[in-house]
Amino acid sequence: MSEEPSTRHRIEIEYDGQPFAGWQRQENAPSVQATIEDAAAKFSGGKTHCYGAGRTDAGVHALCMTAHLDLEKPVASFTVQNAVNALMRPAPVAILSATPVTDDFHARFSAKERHYLYRIIARRAPLALDQGRAWQVPYALDDRAMADAAEVFVGLHDFTTFRSAHCQSKSPVKTLTEVSVERSADEIQLRLRAPSFLHNQVRSIVGTLERVGAGRWSKGDVQDALEAADRSRCGPVAPAQGLYFVKAVY
Amino acid sequence: MSEEPSTRHRIEIEYDGQPFAGWQRQENAPSVQATIEDAAAKFSGGKTHCYGAGRTDAGVHALCMTAHLDLEKPVASFTVQNAVNALMRPAPVAILSATPVTDDFHARFSAKERHYLYRIIARRAPLALDQGRAWQVPYALDDRAMADAAEVFVGLHDFTTFRSAHCQSKSPVKTLTEVSVERSADEIQLRLRAPSFLHNQVRSIVGTLERVGAGRWSKGDVQDALEAADRSRCGPVAPAQGLYFVKAVY
Repeated sequence: MSEEPSTRHRIEIEYDGQPFAGWQRQENAPSVQATIEDAAAKFSGGKTHCYGAGRTDAGVHALCMTAHLDLEKPVASFTVQNAVNALMRPAPVAILSATPVTDDFHARFSAKERHYLYRIIARRAPLALDQGRAWQVPYALDDRAMADAAEVFVGLHDFTTFRSAHCQSKSPVKTLTEVSVERSADEIQLRLRAPSFLHNQVRSIVGTLERVGAGRWSKGDVQDALEAADRSRCGPVAPAQGLYFVKAVY
Repeated sequence: MSEEPSTRHRIEIEYDGQPFAGWQRQENAPSVQATIEDAAAKFSGGKTHCYGAGRTDAGVHALCMTAHLDLEKPVASFTVQNAVNALMRPAPVAILSATPVTDDFHARFSAKERHYLYRIIARRAPLALDQGRAWQVPYALDDRAMADAAEVFVGLHDFTTFRSAHCQSKSPVKTLTEVSVERSADEIQLRLRAPSFLHNQVRSIVGTLERVGAGRWSKGDVQDALEAADRSRCGPVAPAQGLYFVKAVY
């Protein structure tokens, strides 16, 4: 670990999305970005800016979000990590690591790939330990049918059906590198990987695959919905609490 | 699943220990037992009694605690599970399953073995997603040294050193069937298995093994502490939040 003081730091962040209105700073609502920026400003003085690889929605978690944090004066990364972590308490946000980077590192524009995880727990009982951390559905899901239908999404497609009406991306055409479905006991984990995602794309895909798992949609229905390029053809959008930003690759 | 109405039900329970003063009903403090009994009383009328396989302390979690629940009038187990779960919301307690049992089934006295899990996360950053769910230590731990020292505890021993001063058990002599230590990334999981445990026995053992992992105690020190049969020779007791009651075996 370099102890070279720097004004820009690459930081990796873990957070529980439950108390936040999302990643992005907002008026009158707590956000992950503001929590980090405000803590950094408190110890370093001056303006701070924290830019994330992804802008997660309210209730969405991160296992390892990458961001770059700009300070006005150079500080050692080790100090940044310790001071910001101490000043953020008790907010459920933790800087896992910090390294000095030059100004050409940009957490969003330098990222080559993003990984997401979605957790579904299929059981009749409500969640106690995973409350707010997974989507509980009170019936069995056919994970093999879900895995089979997931193939429809892999590759280059027009994802108009599977993005939010508020999505600001110029083009709905994206390449999805991986959509995998794995079951362990009553938990189904979906892993999605792509250079970049549209707004609500993961939750739209997961909500549609859940319909397949429940036996209400066929793989052909999913194919038709994708080809229709029509938002109204999307399945129900899966709730935020099951979604985790896993990591960004540079 | 039998739908035979019954007055006694075996139930399996998941809970997050954070908001509770422990399993056992107390005056003026929330408990898991009271949460279940009060919800059961609300739908069934009359007195209810819920008896657990273990009495976990404040902050200790359960992945699958077994209990028997007695009602005054016979009800189908399926109805008990659904009604009690609905009435306990939003408390982080969930009945995972319920089955009718005869009066000779006793959750505590019929249990042949108990399993516990203890989670330590060794990293500099505080916990965001696992706040209250694991013990964070801000330095590396030598999991192999911990696994080696854990062997000291396996078998029949006088565990006077490793039980609380408030322990009500008649004898400090117990048989520990398993103490295993496994590492995955920065998490160390300890699994303990025995016919029954003394009060604070798991946390006393884990706190002592943590000292070994930190390089402050040797395996010989652990052996000496056990043989001393003296509570003052125990290492620091590990905090409650890393402990999970895994299951009871009948």
